[in-house]
Amino acid sequence: MAKEQKGGISPTRAEDFPQWFQTIVRDAEVAELDHVRGCMVIRPWGFGTWELMQRALDDAIKRSGASNAYFPLFIPLSYFEEEAKHVEGFAKEMAVVTHHRLEQDPDGGLRPAAELPEPLVVRPTSETIIGRSFAKWINSYRDLPLLINQWCNVVRWELRPRVLLRTTEFLWQEGHTAHDSEAEAREKTAEMLGVYREFAEGALAIPVIAGEKPEHERFPGAVTSLTIEAMMQDGKALQSGTSHYLGTNFSEAMGIEFTGEDGERRNAHTTSWGLSTRMLGAVVMTHGDDLGLRVPPRIAQQQVVIVPITRDDPAPVLEAADALATELAEANYAGSPARVHVDRRDRKPAEKRWEWIRKGVPVVVELGGRDIEGGVITITRRDDPELRREQRPREGARELAAALGEIQSAYMEQARDRFEARTTTEVTTLEQFRDWFSGEGAEDGGFVRAAWSEDPATLETMGELGVSVRCIPFDAELASDAKCVITGGPAKVEAIFAKAY
Amino acid sequence: MAKEQKGGISPTRAEDFPQWFQTIVRDAEVAELDHVRGCMVIRPWGFGTWELMQRALDDAIKRSGASNAYFPLFIPLSYFEEEAKHVEGFAKEMAVVTHHRLEQDPDGGLRPAAELPEPLVVRPTSETIIGRSFAKWINSYRDLPLLINQWCNVVRWELRPRVLLRTTEFLWQEGHTAHDSEAEAREKTAEMLGVYREFAEGALAIPVIAGEKPEHERFPGAVTSLTIEAMMQDGKALQSGTSHYLGTNFSEAMGIEFTGEDGERRNAHTTSWGLSTRMLGAVVMTHGDDLGLRVPPRIAQQQVVIVPITRDDPAPVLEAADALATELAEANYAGSPARVHVDRRDRKPAEKRWEWIRKGVPVVVELGGRDIEGGVITITRRDDPELRREQRPREGARELAAALGEIQSAYMEQARDRFEARTTTEVTTLEQFRDWFSGEGAEDGGFVRAAWSEDPATLETMGELGVSVRCIPFDAELASDAKCVITGGPAKVEAIFAKAY
Repeated sequence: MAKEQKGGISPTRAEDFPQWFQTIVRDAEVAELDHVRGCMVIRPWGFGTWELMQRALDDAIKRSGASNAYFPLFIPLSYFEEEAKHVEGFAKEMAVVTHHRLEQDPDGGLRPAAELPEPLVVRPTSETIIGRSFAKWINSYRDLPLLINQWCNVVRWELRPRVLLRTTEFLWQEGHTAHDSEAEAREKTAEMLGVYREFAEGALAIPVIAGEKPEHERFPGAVTSLTIEAMMQDGKALQSGTSHYLGTNFSEAMGIEFTGEDGERRNAHTTSWGLSTRMLGAVVMTHGDDLGLRVPPRIAQQQVVIVPITRDDPAPVLEAADALATELAEANYAGSPARVHVDRRDRKPAEKRWEWIRKGVPVVVELGGRDIEGGVITITRRDDPELRREQRPREGARELAAALGEIQSAYMEQARDRFEARTTTEVTTLEQFRDWFSGEGAEDGGFVRAAWSEDPATLETMGELGVSVRCIPFDAELASDAKCVITGGPAKVEAIFAKAY
Repeated sequence: MAKEQKGGISPTRAEDFPQWFQTIVRDAEVAELDHVRGCMVIRPWGFGTWELMQRALDDAIKRSGASNAYFPLFIPLSYFEEEAKHVEGFAKEMAVVTHHRLEQDPDGGLRPAAELPEPLVVRPTSETIIGRSFAKWINSYRDLPLLINQWCNVVRWELRPRVLLRTTEFLWQEGHTAHDSEAEAREKTAEMLGVYREFAEGALAIPVIAGEKPEHERFPGAVTSLTIEAMMQDGKALQSGTSHYLGTNFSEAMGIEFTGEDGERRNAHTTSWGLSTRMLGAVVMTHGDDLGLRVPPRIAQQQVVIVPITRDDPAPVLEAADALATELAEANYAGSPARVHVDRRDRKPAEKRWEWIRKGVPVVVELGGRDIEGGVITITRRDDPELRREQRPREGARELAAALGEIQSAYMEQARDRFEARTTTEVTTLEQFRDWFSGEGAEDGGFVRAAWSEDPATLETMGELGVSVRCIPFDAELASDAKCVITGGPAKVEAIFAKAY
């Protein structure tokens, strides 16, 4: 299946970042767009990473008190008619089921038959359906808070699909909660953004900046949208997880009411929050290098792969490899036994080593007859850009757990350094702003942290440059006499500006 | 949310089994049909059980060597045109997406817009799409076997939906494998049925009979279909998991070819196997009683629930309950820390106790001031039909792990006894056959194990009685002079006959 390829993704990141991304996603067997325009196949190597991401995030969501549940894929068209703002945001990208049968057409082909009385929308997000279930389940303040999470597929018709980042179908979790007060709902909104932040930085080694979306970037129907924004290696932003305070907008439309302790009927305050498979794309674009993928150990399906170097009689080497694997698996990293794999496939050892390097396994161990005799193992650490082979005494093999921790930290540190180095606070005029985003060397740019007037006219300037306000960061500071970086007029907030995926 | 209800599902199983099932699924908050005809909401209590079922089965599937992956929800219509038998089996129940946008209609409502150039089918099963990916990925015998599993939702339009058992959308896993020989593919087909059998009996405490489907009941396009069949408390069969040897039927249609060690190009032999959320229905219909659900400890989201009995000052009781929960969680059952929950909700203790009994928690512990003083705990075991409260010394609390094991075994034993008692080998004539399935007392019937001619004419008789051949069991025995139970003519096989869900 894997083509033999010694090192080297072509083009390199510097030559053509978008093409490098496509190539690495394909060659490291992460995912591919296939079968249906904009839809993707997530291959075992990519899906194994996604499963570990799911496990880590699911644990955190459950610790927050939410329970998992499952709601229908299909939403009746009528459910959207009452949520005008919400439908406005999604109407242009909804897949619609209109028939429930196939029949032979006269040419011998197949065609849809049995038209549905009411068309069904394939869920783009589930506020309208989960909210209606909440309306049934909630009656008294005793039923609150209600904290529900769903892992599922959703569909948003993409005109310009891009693998992992913008696909017609994607996988995600969507949390939905109902509360008896605005304060509590807002607190939950912030809490879940914190869960995302910790997940991105702790498990994925992706540093993010957290803040609030400006009004024109809010989730359709939300009062407040919070976001974490990551920076890819080309300096572009990737919205990585969002958490919305929906006020009583949805609960009024859907009748989510309860009787308070005082006997009064009131509308619940709701929230929703989601994170998707695009984060698998973020992992690739944050950590990949010109040799291939680099998967942070916390989410690597295989943390250590052992490549046996066998010649005439493979049995003793394979036996030693299995024994080593068993011993290494006892090394505990991040609360779990290390994930160790012995690659027994009928391929050349050098080919295997390069395949695992390209796939981003944190540590590759080579083990041959000579190593066994000498009581050593030969390791390659994926965080070493030169991929040096290092001999270690076989005895200390279990210390590889420490290496996994070092690699996780190294990836985070590199990403953090880049994030900081490429976030400027020194762009204060429109000329500098244009220059940063479209002048010479702009491809080395990144985030601009600058004062902003919130003037709608600024959107046009940003649009011309392909730039958007990513968020008003929580740690924003604004001098009282600050001037808008675009208009030069009085500023209202400090914002993060960037090009974005 | 929960209605106060002291014991008693109405109607009882004896009064009206189908209605009892609907009631228990609703009142124990397992699932509900809602929003879209035939589609269901799986509520947190039901979904928590499904998650544990998934975890157990997924572990076993991974041990079998398969990797998880994900393929598109949508399948182009044209993919079905080449698989005539396959499409014949599914054409009548396929949801079809024809548009990818909504627009306002003149009345202010919404209507589908932007018709797709080719309609898309919402997957009813994924052989056609996964096979086409296999065709790309497989080139040499070195790429085989290829073992892939997918957890996902599928849609089959149901005209007579029934919650959990027959729903338009359901969740399942579907495994797909490709092999270089028939022998190996047939072995994998049998191996995966064995995985299902072990899962059903070990994790779900549901005894099953394993065998082969007769030709007319095969999966559309399969050469051989294997099945495990469980018996519900009303004596009806529930097909619980199937594993298919597909021969080269799909690989020829989709071009899954490889170069063998001898240099020749050949078609791979493929298999597929699936198990779905209907098994959650099987758990309810196998173990539930007239007081509610009984969840086997292995898959119970909460194995022990502690109900604190608090009066004036709740603090010391809650503190003692938390300490007890921590201690109980150290009791290891089936390789995991016990799942223990302290119910702190603002409701009456008796109401809580009944709610957890109705929901089928294996052990409910009541803990009040007097228990604490006396150094005891009061437990109710769900496997005791009289739900006696039993006092135990607080000291030995950790022995509850043993109780969990006993409850799991008790459920299995009860189900096994019923399965055996209600499977007859004494029906040998058509008259007895009719009497068993439609005579007086037929509602107490079950499975008939009898000789069968495979004569197509027998299907009509079976159809009149609402009976089908569930399988030709692997342990079938047939005397050389055996006569068909329906025609009285020469028999070809021994079969299991039953009414079925």
